[in-house]
Amino acid sequence: MLTKIHHVGVVVHSADEALKFYRDALGLAVTADRVIEDQGVRGVLLEIGNSEIELLEPTRDDTGVAKFLASRGEGMHHICFESDDVDAELEGARAKGIELIDQKPRLGLAGMICFLHPKANHGVLVEFATPLKEGH
Amino acid sequence: MLTKIHHVGVVVHSADEALKFYRDALGLAVTADRVIEDQGVRGVLLEIGNSEIELLEPTRDDTGVAKFLASRGEGMHHICFESDDVDAELEGARAKGIELIDQKPRLGLAGMICFLHPKANHGVLVEFATPLKEGH
Repeated sequence: MLTKIHHVGVVVHSADEALKFYRDALGLAVTADRVIEDQGVRGVLLEIGNSEIELLEPTRDDTGVAKFLASRGEGMHHICFESDDVDAELEGARAKGIELIDQKPRLGLAGMICFLHPKANHGVLVEFATPLKEGH
Repeated sequence: MLTKIHHVGVVVHSADEALKFYRDALGLAVTADRVIEDQGVRGVLLEIGNSEIELLEPTRDDTGVAKFLASRGEGMHHICFESDDVDAELEGARAKGIELIDQKPRLGLAGMICFLHPKANHGVLVEFATPLKEGH
């Protein structure tokens, strides 16, 4: 079951520049800011209610995020829905014939995650995430 | 003060087709579905936690939504943050030198709303909304 918008991912040239808008002008609080080497991105999370904005700044040129930035420019990149059971969500999508990017959930910034293919979803890159439980 | 993601706006060619994904596959409940004549769009709202997905299907060709669809294709169009005081939010943005689309709040689908200019916000079209109180 999908329970909320976990976050909206936004691709930017520079997270420092984007923070002048999201943190300084909108007043949102930064809850995480780190480079994920294997994904080639700096990810910055900002809290908005019980959801987040995830700023994504490419740190090298050979990633999906870098290619998105080069071809489409800065802007909204994906929407992540929180689920209480990401495995069931993925199997449900597969059973309904929805094209997948990830064939099984994997560990990501938001917990156990998977991406559906944007072709399946009217141009929107959709992520499902089940956060890891505290202490696990 | 911004309190939550009120909704994410998604532009589609056909809301009926998109509902096969958002309603039928993801299982989100439709809470509103109506044509807004003066904006030239059919708007469909789907509930996700305490936020919404807003599907936007152009009903004529001379609107911003229709032009977005023609130039960029289907996809995420804007993000709306709920505020307890949209007037103060707009004045705050103006005072910080953020470029605005709406110079003052106006009545929209989500209540009293205003849009900031995407150039100011790293490619993201941002809306502020204060829902109307019950009975008003």
